[in-house]
Amino acid sequence: MLNFNYSIQTEIFFGKNKINKLAENVKKYGSKVLLVYGGGSIKKSGLYGKITDIFNKNEIKFFELSGVEPNPRISSVKKGIEICRENKVDLILAVGGGSVIDCSKVIAAGYYYDGDAWDIVLDPRKISKVLPIATILTLAATGSEMDAGAVITNLETSEKLGTGNKDMAPKFSILDPTYTFSVPANQTAAGTADIMSHIFEVYFSNTNEAFMQNRMAEALLKTCIKYGEIAMSDPTNYEARSNLMWTSSLAINGLLSYGKETEWSVHGMEHELSAFYDITHGVGLAILTPHWMEYALNDNTVNKFVEYGVNVWGLDASCDKYEIAHNAIKKTREHFASLGIPSTLREVGIKEEKLEEMAKQATVRGKLGSFKPLDAQDVLNIYKAAF
Amino acid sequence: MLNFNYSIQTEIFFGKNKINKLAENVKKYGSKVLLVYGGGSIKKSGLYGKITDIFNKNEIKFFELSGVEPNPRISSVKKGIEICRENKVDLILAVGGGSVIDCSKVIAAGYYYDGDAWDIVLDPRKISKVLPIATILTLAATGSEMDAGAVITNLETSEKLGTGNKDMAPKFSILDPTYTFSVPANQTAAGTADIMSHIFEVYFSNTNEAFMQNRMAEALLKTCIKYGEIAMSDPTNYEARSNLMWTSSLAINGLLSYGKETEWSVHGMEHELSAFYDITHGVGLAILTPHWMEYALNDNTVNKFVEYGVNVWGLDASCDKYEIAHNAIKKTREHFASLGIPSTLREVGIKEEKLEEMAKQATVRGKLGSFKPLDAQDVLNIYKAAF
Repeated sequence: MLNFNYSIQTEIFFGKNKINKLAENVKKYGSKVLLVYGGGSIKKSGLYGKITDIFNKNEIKFFELSGVEPNPRISSVKKGIEICRENKVDLILAVGGGSVIDCSKVIAAGYYYDGDAWDIVLDPRKISKVLPIATILTLAATGSEMDAGAVITNLETSEKLGTGNKDMAPKFSILDPTYTFSVPANQTAAGTADIMSHIFEVYFSNTNEAFMQNRMAEALLKTCIKYGEIAMSDPTNYEARSNLMWTSSLAINGLLSYGKETEWSVHGMEHELSAFYDITHGVGLAILTPHWMEYALNDNTVNKFVEYGVNVWGLDASCDKYEIAHNAIKKTREHFASLGIPSTLREVGIKEEKLEEMAKQATVRGKLGSFKPLDAQDVLNIYKAAF
Repeated sequence: MLNFNYSIQTEIFFGKNKINKLAENVKKYGSKVLLVYGGGSIKKSGLYGKITDIFNKNEIKFFELSGVEPNPRISSVKKGIEICRENKVDLILAVGGGSVIDCSKVIAAGYYYDGDAWDIVLDPRKISKVLPIATILTLAATGSEMDAGAVITNLETSEKLGTGNKDMAPKFSILDPTYTFSVPANQTAAGTADIMSHIFEVYFSNTNEAFMQNRMAEALLKTCIKYGEIAMSDPTNYEARSNLMWTSSLAINGLLSYGKETEWSVHGMEHELSAFYDITHGVGLAILTPHWMEYALNDNTVNKFVEYGVNVWGLDASCDKYEIAHNAIKKTREHFASLGIPSTLREVGIKEEKLEEMAKQATVRGKLGSFKPLDAQDVLNIYKAAF
């Protein structure tokens, strides 16, 4: 097990009606809030009304940034920073899924940065101070409610990049699974694929001796596999929604990666798809994952795939190693298909002529991953296989 | 899944040489430290010298409380409080296993309590404020390095009781697995049994819908089963020691219990054994556990034991339910035996004539547990079966 420093400071209020914790916790940081949300589904669901009622009753003044995009854009971040500065906001409350939260995180860091906000996406070291952030989660997917990272898109430059700072982790997050009852089936599927991808990114690692972390990762994968389909076919199933929601947070808050060498690769490849074509992140991940697995499978990595097949999919451990590995990948592919997720890049509108440019862009900061390091040619091969 | 509030504030510095984080983190709280330790093994191992060197080099003044007992006594707590008050200590550094840490926690809370320190063990609500605590762990067992509880023994009244307060959680803990290389085999066994018991106490619960927590609990149990024996036969095996150490912390820091109804029972029964006979906590737990399991097994609980047998011990899921359940319990008993732990109360010096008194005492605060609630007669039956 590798050395690590563990610190997860986000408080979580989990369960039905936990919104009753909102006012007292906001007031720890002040009385002026920037409320950030997306396309307005929180108005339809009534959540917006509940929040603003609480604010009004508790003399919390609020300002709004709405319309944050599914792949949140630096232009929205800049708008948010302006509103915060004009009104000397004390805390940013993100209400939504990962896009809204990520946008809020970079607003919070950009508030204290004098230059162009895109700078702190390009170079996280430029982040010196961050406004407090809190979240009310409405989609189980990115885990941004309990981690310190954010991914922002710059459509002008076709760049989608991650940034992060420990102070960007939310101070508190309200996780009420009933707020995800209204998430449509296709978004539930994409969210579940995103959670699974976060787990894969740290599970497939060269640090074999982190036995406990590996078994926990399998525990979380099994949870996604069990409940993804249930949540799609029975959207108000609380057991499914609550398990998926809590799994989304633990999948990426550090619990599975502390003590391991983990350098992500599929996310790096996917970010280019979203940056160039604005596709749903989880869908891109689900399309690429089985192809990445086949590409990463070799004599050095086969044992890890055997572990995955036996422990997660219950495959027969006495079979030939490569047979188990290929079957495990097949199970993965079939699982994503059973969630109704497209299985080729072509289906989601990606054009063959862009593959090479995207592959170059994906590796512009260097090779992707460490389990099976990928250069531009490797990424292109995987894109082509997934096309 | 039940509603819960999650907050785990302890920072962990995990791995080889993480003691290099000591000075800077102590200094966040001040420059006067009470150093608490047990029978002096940290002097033999050289750890004491390392710590005091760091203190001297960094102008950190320290006072000492040594000789804390394996079942820490309220008399030691009182001594510690006196030293802290005389010297206006800023932080308490516990160096050792759970006993030393638990003792330090109650010293830290007692520092601000005007009455008799035993009061705050009897009634945690009397704790108003707590001195900052930090730990350097030398034994993987109780998980006290990352939780907010403490268990203290009053030999005068033959009471061993738990207390707790959120501010009793250590501010930071240094977990260097090499510090457990010198733990003798029997203590490694008892420590591993203690970790497993913490997991059992929350795994066997009526909240079946906490699927993810249950799978994580199984992940941690498998880790104990794999590495307990390795650490005993190969004490400097870093992989084994590191997996056990990190598992000890996660087993009881809330991760497995958040969202579940968990009312402990085996610990309540065991505390009386230690209070009356000062036996090793983990040994008492290992003796009682299989008998508690047999006693708790009934038509309401059998499915949980099947889950345990199939998922943890790999038993054939197609067999008869009760056959799987009994086999799972048998596997548990055999596992503790394989660690060289005695299997009867008689063997550890407990006398039959005390069983009834201990059973009454164990239930003095009411029935134990909720999975299978136990009254005094139930506890007596289990003690007799284990005798």
